[in-house]
Amino acid sequence: MAHIGLPEGLPGIRGPMAFRPETAKPLNELVDVLLRGPHPLSPGERELIATYVSALNECTYCQTIHGAIAAHRLGGNEELVRSVKRDFKAADISDKLKALLAIAGKVQSGGKNVTTEDVDRARRLGASDLEIHDTVLIAAFFCLCNRYVDGLATWAPDDAEFYRQRAALVVANGYAATAAAAAAAK
Amino acid sequence: MAHIGLPEGLPGIRGPMAFRPETAKPLNELVDVLLRGPHPLSPGERELIATYVSALNECTYCQTIHGAIAAHRLGGNEELVRSVKRDFKAADISDKLKALLAIAGKVQSGGKNVTTEDVDRARRLGASDLEIHDTVLIAAFFCLCNRYVDGLATWAPDDAEFYRQRAALVVANGYAATAAAAAAAK
Repeated sequence: MAHIGLPEGLPGIRGPMAFRPETAKPLNELVDVLLRGPHPLSPGERELIATYVSALNECTYCQTIHGAIAAHRLGGNEELVRSVKRDFKAADISDKLKALLAIAGKVQSGGKNVTTEDVDRARRLGASDLEIHDTVLIAAFFCLCNRYVDGLATWAPDDAEFYRQRAALVVANGYAATAAAAAAAK
Repeated sequence: MAHIGLPEGLPGIRGPMAFRPETAKPLNELVDVLLRGPHPLSPGERELIATYVSALNECTYCQTIHGAIAAHRLGGNEELVRSVKRDFKAADISDKLKALLAIAGKVQSGGKNVTTEDVDRARRLGASDLEIHDTVLIAAFFCLCNRYVDGLATWAPDDAEFYRQRAALVVANGYAATAAAAAAAK
């Protein structure tokens, strides 16, 4: 049971977002810019960063929904998402993305853990300042989301199909618009 | 030196915010709602939560600027801010705020660390669901900010007077408006 009285039937971050729409609005705007806005990294690559950090933080809801969105973005390749979570260095992704995931992992354990060497390596493999900036901010943002979701003890569905269907909705409509449609339907 | 090329002369989070205004906008909106919006907790109390979490994350810029804003809000009482950072249980603050700071500290180390007992205790001391929700989200938000600021290796001024003057500006104008004024002055 969640630590506070949240609207019924909404898993993960959606309960607290419905409870407090004033904070949900900028949170959804931020995630739309970070994961869906125009960018040199594809939406699928950015969702992989979100999934990886959420897995490190052991947040069931976030790693499963963003893993489902990543897989949807990557042609339904759920095995690729699993391989990134298991050992991204051995996954079938670009060396640049591996270097960015290494930075994201450092951010997860604490911002000061990111070294000049980590950043130089990503840059040598083709990462721009924007890509490095957004990797740090995506990782930091999911350190927020994971703590928000678990700090209030929200629930997460067990059914993988639930996440696949939700992923398709979010990919089609975006984070803010999907949340707004759910609020209007109440 | 920062890990990426940031605009000159802007300390802490202000460099990355000027570098990426698309993400700065929702971040500033969120912090204005969380720390300045209408609320049963005073702005000074909410700034103390932000300061405490930033101190646990050892983020020099965030703990110093939010500590200065907290002190400004609390009648210039810098010693109270120091005492909260040193040992909040012994500080001259309400028992309710102490229970909320305990929750914030759990969130800092990981959302799953917040227990039903932590929340029940806060509730017995008068905390509402909104206050518990916002404590969790403020703590989670500063886990983002601290990682953003340190993950990009931004710089922080040493001069306490710098933070006092900036604190007065933010208290007078708000986070989003202060950032917008700085951007317009460039």
